Amino acid sequence: MTPNQELNRVEVCFTPCDFHQYEEGFDLIVVIDVLRATSAICTAIEYGVKGIIPLATLEEAREYKEKGYIVAAERNGAIVQGFDIGNSPYAYMKPELKGKTIALTTTNGTKAIRISEQKKTVVIGSLNNLKSLCNWLVKQKRDVLVLASGWKDKFNLEDTICGGAITDTLLKSGQFTSEEDSSVAAKFIYRSAKENMFAYLKASSHRRRLRALDLNADVSYCLTPNILSAIPILKNGIIVPLEVVVEEMM
Amino acid sequence: MTPNQELNRVEVCFTPCDFHQYEEGFDLIVVIDVLRATSAICTAIEYGVKGIIPLATLEEAREYKEKGYIVAAERNGAIVQGFDIGNSPYAYMKPELKGKTIALTTTNGTKAIRISEQKKTVVIGSLNNLKSLCNWLVKQKRDVLVLASGWKDKFNLEDTICGGAITDTLLKSGQFTSEEDSSVAAKFIYRSAKENMFAYLKASSHRRRLRALDLNADVSYCLTPNILSAIPILKNGIIVPLEVVVEEMM
Repeated sequence: MTPNQELNRVEVCFTPCDFHQYEEGFDLIVVIDVLRATSAICTAIEYGVKGIIPLATLEEAREYKEKGYIVAAERNGAIVQGFDIGNSPYAYMKPELKGKTIALTTTNGTKAIRISEQKKTVVIGSLNNLKSLCNWLVKQKRDVLVLASGWKDKFNLEDTICGGAITDTLLKSGQFTSEEDSSVAAKFIYRSAKENMFAYLKASSHRRRLRALDLNADVSYCLTPNILSAIPILKNGIIVPLEVVVEEMM
Repeated sequence: MTPNQELNRVEVCFTPCDFHQYEEGFDLIVVIDVLRATSAICTAIEYGVKGIIPLATLEEAREYKEKGYIVAAERNGAIVQGFDIGNSPYAYMKPELKGKTIALTTTNGTKAIRISEQKKTVVIGSLNNLKSLCNWLVKQKRDVLVLASGWKDKFNLEDTICGGAITDTLLKSGQFTSEEDSSVAAKFIYRSAKENMFAYLKASSHRRRLRALDLNADVSYCLTPNILSAIPILKNGIIVPLEVVVEEMM
């Protein structure tokens, strides 16, 4: 880095309802919903799903089902009655989904994606694709706003840890700076959680919710960093592999 | 504690704009604005100020000044032109304020107090009166919601640390539990900050703001736990010493 090079900002916004207070000046958004929507989306794209249409409501999901789409729907941690898939990452590894376009609605994650969609670039983050995503973000030389999906517009720990992981990694590149207290807090929380995230999250509200649903395997998967390299990106309302967009720009 | 004794909740709400999502079921609120409004209020009550009228707007402050009140007004860290006092705790130690009622408006803290005022009990917290306040809270056997004032409706670090300190202390009494992720996060942040809060807050946005105003002595004072025993409480729109309310109830 040359001494006069201007640093880019990386900031963390804790919930979709805070987005309007943080979004000014950012046109590159990373949406995260670690448990489990964005971990599932990254998995789907890595395993060959062609595209994912994020839907905010169950009404839209039912319309897509009538149109003949494969539709995934989750509310409060469980698959919604009448749909085949929820947001367990494992469900998206199935060979029969390869090359398919899936419509998806979840309690928090897909809403956060829809809130960001007027922005120039919206990518999907998780702990699973942390390294690959951060490598790409560093190359963009743009300000980055990480939007945590939270839980029904409330702050949640797991998304904050992931937001902190992205912030910490970008700051360490020497090309970024953070100004918001939310970003500083997320970084501190990540640093104290990173050695044992599973234990750290024991007290979190969503962990308790998922434990009641017997989803410990999902939680364990979602908290494992750097097992995926896919970078899903929103293009004309559909989440596709980054390569598709890059190829079209060539 | 007997095994069947029901635990009370202690939760932290990060900003006034999140209050509606957290306040249901709570009628005991602790308002904190560590830098500097609630530290100043605790100091004023400790040093003999009779009462403080929290005002949300500068318009109200000007009306009180015309009525002949001593009026304190702060915006963005500085004393507002035309007023004598801001929200430096040191300003409230002056002997000439003893026995007086002061009207006060600040950027964040007084707004948070006004938002809570429909609740049955609103007390004022800070690091300065931490121990005294927590001792009293434990005796109440009621659910406690800590409302951080934040900075212009954004999350801030210093109030989160104080909220975490209150949460940590109440949990250690064995009579409380926390369910919200915000409370768990605040507790973790307090625990990693408590050995050196001044250094921990070096990166915080408000510290930078106050440093520019040369207020390091104020910051140092506000970050010193347990130097005050006053518990200010809201009564009919005026903040008074807890003793006044207790005596009237006798």
